[in-house]
Amino acid sequence: MGEKPLSAKVEQIVHMVGGTGETSYAKNSIVQAKVILKAKPIVEEAIREVYITLFPMKFVAADLGCSSGPNTFLVISEIISVIHELSRRLDISHESEIQIFLNDLPGNDFNNIFRSLTDYKKQIKEDKGENVVPFYVAGSPGSFYTRLFPSKSVHFFHSSYSQMWLSQVPRMVDDECTFDELKKQNLYSEQFKEDFSTFLKLRSKELIFGGRMVLIIAGRVNNSEYKDPFYMLGLLRLALNDMISEGLARKADRNVINFPCYTPTIEELKFIIDKKEGFFYLDHVETFESSWDPFEDELNNLQPDYILRGKIVVKHIQAIVEPLLNGHFDKETIADLFSRYAKIITTHLVEKPKWVNFVLVLKLR
Amino acid sequence: MGEKPLSAKVEQIVHMVGGTGETSYAKNSIVQAKVILKAKPIVEEAIREVYITLFPMKFVAADLGCSSGPNTFLVISEIISVIHELSRRLDISHESEIQIFLNDLPGNDFNNIFRSLTDYKKQIKEDKGENVVPFYVAGSPGSFYTRLFPSKSVHFFHSSYSQMWLSQVPRMVDDECTFDELKKQNLYSEQFKEDFSTFLKLRSKELIFGGRMVLIIAGRVNNSEYKDPFYMLGLLRLALNDMISEGLARKADRNVINFPCYTPTIEELKFIIDKKEGFFYLDHVETFESSWDPFEDELNNLQPDYILRGKIVVKHIQAIVEPLLNGHFDKETIADLFSRYAKIITTHLVEKPKWVNFVLVLKLR
Repeated sequence: MGEKPLSAKVEQIVHMVGGTGETSYAKNSIVQAKVILKAKPIVEEAIREVYITLFPMKFVAADLGCSSGPNTFLVISEIISVIHELSRRLDISHESEIQIFLNDLPGNDFNNIFRSLTDYKKQIKEDKGENVVPFYVAGSPGSFYTRLFPSKSVHFFHSSYSQMWLSQVPRMVDDECTFDELKKQNLYSEQFKEDFSTFLKLRSKELIFGGRMVLIIAGRVNNSEYKDPFYMLGLLRLALNDMISEGLARKADRNVINFPCYTPTIEELKFIIDKKEGFFYLDHVETFESSWDPFEDELNNLQPDYILRGKIVVKHIQAIVEPLLNGHFDKETIADLFSRYAKIITTHLVEKPKWVNFVLVLKLR
Repeated sequence: MGEKPLSAKVEQIVHMVGGTGETSYAKNSIVQAKVILKAKPIVEEAIREVYITLFPMKFVAADLGCSSGPNTFLVISEIISVIHELSRRLDISHESEIQIFLNDLPGNDFNNIFRSLTDYKKQIKEDKGENVVPFYVAGSPGSFYTRLFPSKSVHFFHSSYSQMWLSQVPRMVDDECTFDELKKQNLYSEQFKEDFSTFLKLRSKELIFGGRMVLIIAGRVNNSEYKDPFYMLGLLRLALNDMISEGLARKADRNVINFPCYTPTIEELKFIIDKKEGFFYLDHVETFESSWDPFEDELNNLQPDYILRGKIVVKHIQAIVEPLLNGHFDKETIADLFSRYAKIITTHLVEKPKWVNFVLVLKLR
């Protein structure tokens, strides 16, 4: 394996994910997949605990912010595997069934998920046999900052890499404030506090007592090198500043780079969860780092080609933020912006930058 | 064994024309809307009976074969209206909630439904006020000839104009048999019997005891002028025969016009429902006629322009069957076919042709 030239190997990997020229999220979600897999033991333990405590005939689970791509099915697979094994191993008098709700905003490509579902079901039957625990998948469109499910109807909530999406860019974040990073950070922090509180309150009504909620949150650590709450996206602002100074973009365009996105610290999360009128308590928390570079682990011992890998990282981010820019910039401007961004990312990759992830297991108070 | 390629593909290809364009199902579903409205009192009475008998905290309803268009929301509205009024009028100790599953094949345009949902919710709040009974809508992709929901989890099933879609074109319906209409009818009748039995068996597992299923079925009457089990679609075969005789299509193309579609008689329906191992009994049945021409009632007193109205009827049918033809014919052939079909329909419209609809209310045995 190591004998192959690096670039060829990376292209093979990228090709496996689905072709090099494409910028779709479905084909650029390796980082998320890695995080979901790292959190897998915690997720599985949570499901196991709920199942063993409640022995529900019908285990209802919801994945909030499921997106549309191969990762969508990773979580479903974890749920099915745990319940399938448990219901076979334990002496359960009834046949268990699973109902899984896939939630995302109404603009998510649910058609794509639904059309993959037939193949997915076939695959599960091949893996687990025809007597696999029956499961039923439904799509549940809507913002998780609104009610999504009837009261006390869900045993298990899962959400990965979704809480960083705020309900809106904080009001008052305007061009003036763009220069005052501290003021802006405070406005974002307040917005996160409001949104995450709302999220917890709504889910507490929908969760069945004895159930669990596992949240995998892209976060930051205070007093460390990863303290920018807008993490990698902050560097996109540097690229835009270059374009403004060259007259290729206007100062006002800076507001477009204010994404509704915030990575909290564990202290912020705990403060919101533990406050007096809190609905949940934190049963368990784990922290782990992720590399910005999805291929860092695999390629650790090889001579790194940071230019190529910078491009890969940027493709990944572009898949997430491009829809937010499309209304404001034309195609050429976006291409220029991301080409400059790739160069900035490339110089950062040399330092092997990371961010942190928090896996929270929450129970109803 | 040796399934024909066409029958194997039915699940992938039976879906209405998506989106909102001129030939989309969404824009051409007036006939279905009229039928749903005519059945409204029966549907509402059935919902009322279930609600008053069971007083569920969470009323779960499913619309099977919901398609994608304005009609999708007609059924939801009926359910919400009845439960909203009842829960306000009666002295119910708990707050009721509604969970609605919209089911159709995975190829249905669920994205379109989900993107309309936000506006729909706004509309409902304008009509009924902010204290409207909370409702949650989910999409449930899959063939209703497979299990779709957990056991005993649904209070109310609704399905309109969907049972005529078979799970497949009957095996053995081949080019030879295309000439033997009686033999073909028998094969179709057997397939319908098998499919409708399967449908009833699966739904009987999913329905909560005390629940109801209302089916609106496009049917036919024996010994009458509406006895063709393939109704209007039969005339498409005449159009194709013309093209074959002119050398514009091949004889083998006739198989493409064998749609997985069958309109049963009420005797056939009753026979399947009432058989010994039956899961349901027929609580109530109503029969009414529909005009082929969606504007007949409105235009009754006007000088009819049959050419225009023939085109409208054909546009409506085209929205349903075009996806079934797309893999076989090129665009020009399809355009030619439907243009000839419009002429044939136009001459038939002079006789004000109708078909019959059966509204069945079913209860668990």
